Amino acid sequence: MDKRIEELKATVRADAERIEKELDAYLTSKDNDIDLLFETQRYATLDGGKRIRPFLVNEFCRLFGGSEETSMAYACAIEMIHNYSLIHDDLPCMDDDDLRRGRPSTHKAFGYATALLAGDALLTRAFGIIAENDKASAEQNAKAVALLAAAAGDYGMIGGQVLDLQGETEELDMEMLLKVQAMKTGALMECSARLGALAAGFDTDTKESETAGLYARKIGLAFQVIDDILDIEGDQVELGKNIRSDAEHNKTTFMTYYTAEEARVFAAELTAEAVSAIAGIEGSETLTDLAAYLVQRTA
Amino acid sequence: MDKRIEELKATVRADAERIEKELDAYLTSKDNDIDLLFETQRYATLDGGKRIRPFLVNEFCRLFGGSEETSMAYACAIEMIHNYSLIHDDLPCMDDDDLRRGRPSTHKAFGYATALLAGDALLTRAFGIIAENDKASAEQNAKAVALLAAAAGDYGMIGGQVLDLQGETEELDMEMLLKVQAMKTGALMECSARLGALAAGFDTDTKESETAGLYARKIGLAFQVIDDILDIEGDQVELGKNIRSDAEHNKTTFMTYYTAEEARVFAAELTAEAVSAIAGIEGSETLTDLAAYLVQRTA
Repeated sequence: MDKRIEELKATVRADAERIEKELDAYLTSKDNDIDLLFETQRYATLDGGKRIRPFLVNEFCRLFGGSEETSMAYACAIEMIHNYSLIHDDLPCMDDDDLRRGRPSTHKAFGYATALLAGDALLTRAFGIIAENDKASAEQNAKAVALLAAAAGDYGMIGGQVLDLQGETEELDMEMLLKVQAMKTGALMECSARLGALAAGFDTDTKESETAGLYARKIGLAFQVIDDILDIEGDQVELGKNIRSDAEHNKTTFMTYYTAEEARVFAAELTAEAVSAIAGIEGSETLTDLAAYLVQRTA
Repeated sequence: MDKRIEELKATVRADAERIEKELDAYLTSKDNDIDLLFETQRYATLDGGKRIRPFLVNEFCRLFGGSEETSMAYACAIEMIHNYSLIHDDLPCMDDDDLRRGRPSTHKAFGYATALLAGDALLTRAFGIIAENDKASAEQNAKAVALLAAAAGDYGMIGGQVLDLQGETEELDMEMLLKVQAMKTGALMECSARLGALAAGFDTDTKESETAGLYARKIGLAFQVIDDILDIEGDQVELGKNIRSDAEHNKTTFMTYYTAEEARVFAAELTAEAVSAIAGIEGSETLTDLAAYLVQRTA
């Protein structure tokens, strides 16, 4: 198993390097007067993160017979959305986190206003990149924009953040906690997988897209459960962000209801469900290994 | 002339009422748990503003033989973008304005974090609405997304805001001031007009789109010149926002270089250039009157 995980990590890393190159090109300023805006976006986006979401986009595209060339723009867009959300999440008015990926968070490094605008810029750019993807059809691109706007919007990520904030003043019950996590983290993971299917030619109403979405929802939730455990038991240096941040904000998490052991069992069940969703699809071993890797991670 | 301006105002008002209805429907929550997020967006978006940008979308669509049905989604999207930018602009880390349209600004009414997220939600939703516009083709919608992302992004509105912030610590020369205003205000005005042309079937590389863009750039700049005058000479109650806000922030404006009289001459010249751009197009009288109205406004 360990050898397979090592291979998986190498695959994800190789994919991440190609994504890095694309993001670097997208985030190169063509106007010196606004270099600061690009510098801020580069700081927040480049050289960091596991790149799980863009990997899901590209891997599901490959799994369903598409080419990475077609999905790469979608992959970069979703990574921009993820990074904008981290910038805004870290702001003083939100989680007020001063550490991210082992470095000062973006507003600590560039100031509050510039960080806010850099987040807005990444969010805006993501949609432009999708719309201009000349490796896919206009139909695919329009559907991809709609898919991403829904996942990142009111009934997805942003709605989840609003509920998450409410969870700081009132304890969420388990049903609501599951809903918040599905919106806040799950929606963008699901969107990543479905964007990959879309790039391979499978619309949101196809079995392929449904399968991709189910797999990603399950690993997304497992990912969040592990995050909650690591926020208590993890190593701050290895994680590169402040631990015990949830407790500090009085957040309801899975650790409110589970012991670490119970939480790990729950994450393992979710992982099994994710793996079962893609079982039997030729070439799905990489995604099986990804699910296993994410649940055993320590950072 | 006054009678024509009155008619123009009635036309704009009637258009604004139809836009209001659409925006109301878009901003109706389908999930009680996140009513607060919608309430905040409604507060920031409904019942306010002159709706100049969506009017430009619809009017240029009509001018070039298209139907308002096709352009209405684009019109609503641009108004959402405009209102998201006002929410974020008013935040304490930006202009720190507590008054907008005669009411407490959004963060004053709903708190910093919720206002930030409501802005993010409006920005995100705008692209979703365009992508799902079933009255236009997928090609048109993808092009509209690209056009809006460019106008609202790094080299447009957001870049202009970053430069505008820099203008608080260093005086901008006239060339740079013109550039900042073209990016910060002009780009979205130009985009509005070009979205209208696009909805009528005219791509960005057509003469029609160029004409629409030129007209809108000129009235956009004139609009900003008048704004700068009103920030000094205007009536706070009539304007519904704090005056002398520019001076308070040490902002370079057209009033840094011009007397009020000189500024009015400049605005009149820009208006004449805008009118000349559309002269000879059948049915362009409404847009001629709009240019005249915007330059003589007192609020």
